[in-house]
Amino acid sequence: MKYPPVILNTNGLKNYIQGKLWFTYKDLDSFEKIKDSIEPGSLVSLYSQHKHFLGQGYFNSHSYYSLKLLTKKEISIDISFFKETFKLALEFRERFFPGESSFRLIHSEGDHLPGLIIDLFDKVGVIQIHTLGMERLKSIIIDALLQIRPLESIVLKNDFDKRKEEKLPLYVDFYLKEPQDPYPIEMDGIKFLIPIIKGQKTGFFLDQRENRRFLSRISHGLIIMDGFAYIGGFSFYALKGGAKRVYLLERSGYALDIALEIAKLNGWKDQVVPVEGDVFQLLKNPVAKANLLILDPPAFIKSKKDYFQGYKKYKELYSLGLQYFKAQNGFLFLFSCSHFLKLQELLLFLKESLSKCNFSAKIFQVFHQSPDHPINPCVEETEYLKGVALEFSHLHAPL
Amino acid sequence: MKYPPVILNTNGLKNYIQGKLWFTYKDLDSFEKIKDSIEPGSLVSLYSQHKHFLGQGYFNSHSYYSLKLLTKKEISIDISFFKETFKLALEFRERFFPGESSFRLIHSEGDHLPGLIIDLFDKVGVIQIHTLGMERLKSIIIDALLQIRPLESIVLKNDFDKRKEEKLPLYVDFYLKEPQDPYPIEMDGIKFLIPIIKGQKTGFFLDQRENRRFLSRISHGLIIMDGFAYIGGFSFYALKGGAKRVYLLERSGYALDIALEIAKLNGWKDQVVPVEGDVFQLLKNPVAKANLLILDPPAFIKSKKDYFQGYKKYKELYSLGLQYFKAQNGFLFLFSCSHFLKLQELLLFLKESLSKCNFSAKIFQVFHQSPDHPINPCVEETEYLKGVALEFSHLHAPL
Repeated sequence: MKYPPVILNTNGLKNYIQGKLWFTYKDLDSFEKIKDSIEPGSLVSLYSQHKHFLGQGYFNSHSYYSLKLLTKKEISIDISFFKETFKLALEFRERFFPGESSFRLIHSEGDHLPGLIIDLFDKVGVIQIHTLGMERLKSIIIDALLQIRPLESIVLKNDFDKRKEEKLPLYVDFYLKEPQDPYPIEMDGIKFLIPIIKGQKTGFFLDQRENRRFLSRISHGLIIMDGFAYIGGFSFYALKGGAKRVYLLERSGYALDIALEIAKLNGWKDQVVPVEGDVFQLLKNPVAKANLLILDPPAFIKSKKDYFQGYKKYKELYSLGLQYFKAQNGFLFLFSCSHFLKLQELLLFLKESLSKCNFSAKIFQVFHQSPDHPINPCVEETEYLKGVALEFSHLHAPL
Repeated sequence: MKYPPVILNTNGLKNYIQGKLWFTYKDLDSFEKIKDSIEPGSLVSLYSQHKHFLGQGYFNSHSYYSLKLLTKKEISIDISFFKETFKLALEFRERFFPGESSFRLIHSEGDHLPGLIIDLFDKVGVIQIHTLGMERLKSIIIDALLQIRPLESIVLKNDFDKRKEEKLPLYVDFYLKEPQDPYPIEMDGIKFLIPIIKGQKTGFFLDQRENRRFLSRISHGLIIMDGFAYIGGFSFYALKGGAKRVYLLERSGYALDIALEIAKLNGWKDQVVPVEGDVFQLLKNPVAKANLLILDPPAFIKSKKDYFQGYKKYKELYSLGLQYFKAQNGFLFLFSCSHFLKLQELLLFLKESLSKCNFSAKIFQVFHQSPDHPINPCVEETEYLKGVALEFSHLHAPL
């Protein structure tokens, strides 16, 4: 429980009081001294210049944020700490998803554990670690997880580029045993195959779950065009809801192969049409007429400096979506998973674009990330997924 | 189909191109002339100075907005026009609420009919008319409604102050027959009594329906404090979801009487505690400890000039909510139905407030208005309801 002390300077204290949980070298007292004496990734205790205890976190002099807070309490960051946090996170999820076994258990700062993501897919836990501080706590994280949840396998899916910023190696590792890949789960009555090892991120985008459920509610009898379909999360919820046919637009042939396997498992083989290619190109010459188009692209704005270029790309994509319904009625779902693009900006873009073409659109649903991906009100970055559902009918406007 | 022509000036055309659907006298050519020649409330055709047809709407020289557009098509504004619009609106609702009989059918600009609200409560249609232009179309609106929906009664609930701005009389009127008041309906398996005549607005706030369903999902075993409860919309969904007890904080004794009747109808009499009084005062000395507090106040910002005072009042109320969970775990639902308060402002307020007290809050749901209250992307005012659900657990922060 006695960790090396780190002291916030006046600037750091100001940020602390404003609720910041991340601190750069500019916030710390005698940074030059501690950067040599405290090993990167170490747990530290945080104090004010007047020796008030402020919290505990991890330190990494090599990282842009030298210190990230884990707790404001004076407690040990040990297996009990993680067990308690996991238990609380689990109880919280069980309130929304009673009796279910696949959901995000830990959403980094959203669950007050910066740098840690844990997704559960039935009996497999998938861990992603973003920081050196968390990496050093890996073994107690795994032990704590196994104590609160009976898992057959744990996958460390640490092969993403962001780790390079913390000078962490990229790897995939297993505990207990290597899981079947793709791994079969069932969710809302749909059989899925999750490409944990070979797929994107942890294997599946659980953050869209509630939004997929919403789609399912309105899909009856519709033909769906699913842009950036990946393994077909939206498409299969639409089929479950009674959609007639789904077109999966996706550049990864591997993801489409899995989608076809999932279609077979659920008896939907004849209703699934995979279309391999670039979604922008595919929208310029649509393969078919659909009643409902989903555009759920990867993050186009990954950092502040990408803003203008990324925003342009979003606008280009969304405009293709609007164009699609210029001369027909239907539904359009637009998403952004970049926290840099705010909901008000998306609404403003729609206002400006739609006024130019017609005035017969309605926004009937505003989307956010699912409740197992909580937002930390003090960490803007945790509010990232947003979207809208539009209905077009050309009754009041000339086509 | 030949309506008196109104011509947009350069400024008006600029606004038209930007998607505006409302025009003031500054947008119109020769306003001084037409204000005497066109009877207030008349249907008019809109043209550019170069005689391009632009749309049709209604004109009222006495209103701040002299002209509001109904369509960009050159069609008659007759019973067929309303019938077609209503049919489309109905089909749209039937997609989300299949087989249901209570929902908002027409949401003013959200359904491209400025100044008109229609709520359906089973066999009763409740109409609210905000403008003189719509008032003059009243009888064809009623006829069109009866042609698409078999109703036993239509209520014109035109007793709200906003009508004075259009110099319209305040009244309540019935067609076919006077409905029972409160009027019994069933919604999501809950028996409700809707005070159509004596209650607020159309009798019930249908815009919170999806948010009430969400509450129902997480209410099991909880004690609920329902601030600004009105007739208990949130409370009864919570009880349906397995809540142990609900406290209804509400200043209207009449609304509470109805809530008690509803409780009896559903067999929840012993679980409902009405608390009559001012919610601000009641929160300062809470009557009981609850696990979940809902604050769904009336609009505190009704016009731009109210902004600062209204925002202060929201902040005061929300702060009382945060205060409530300062030393206990639980859930807090905060809402605003004023379109002047944006979601980002609510999030910013939370960031600033929470950083001051602790860092153990999570936002696990962001709320908006239900899909039967669509947003018109070109009319900002139609995006009005927003809210967040917070979870407090003091694991990481000292109490």
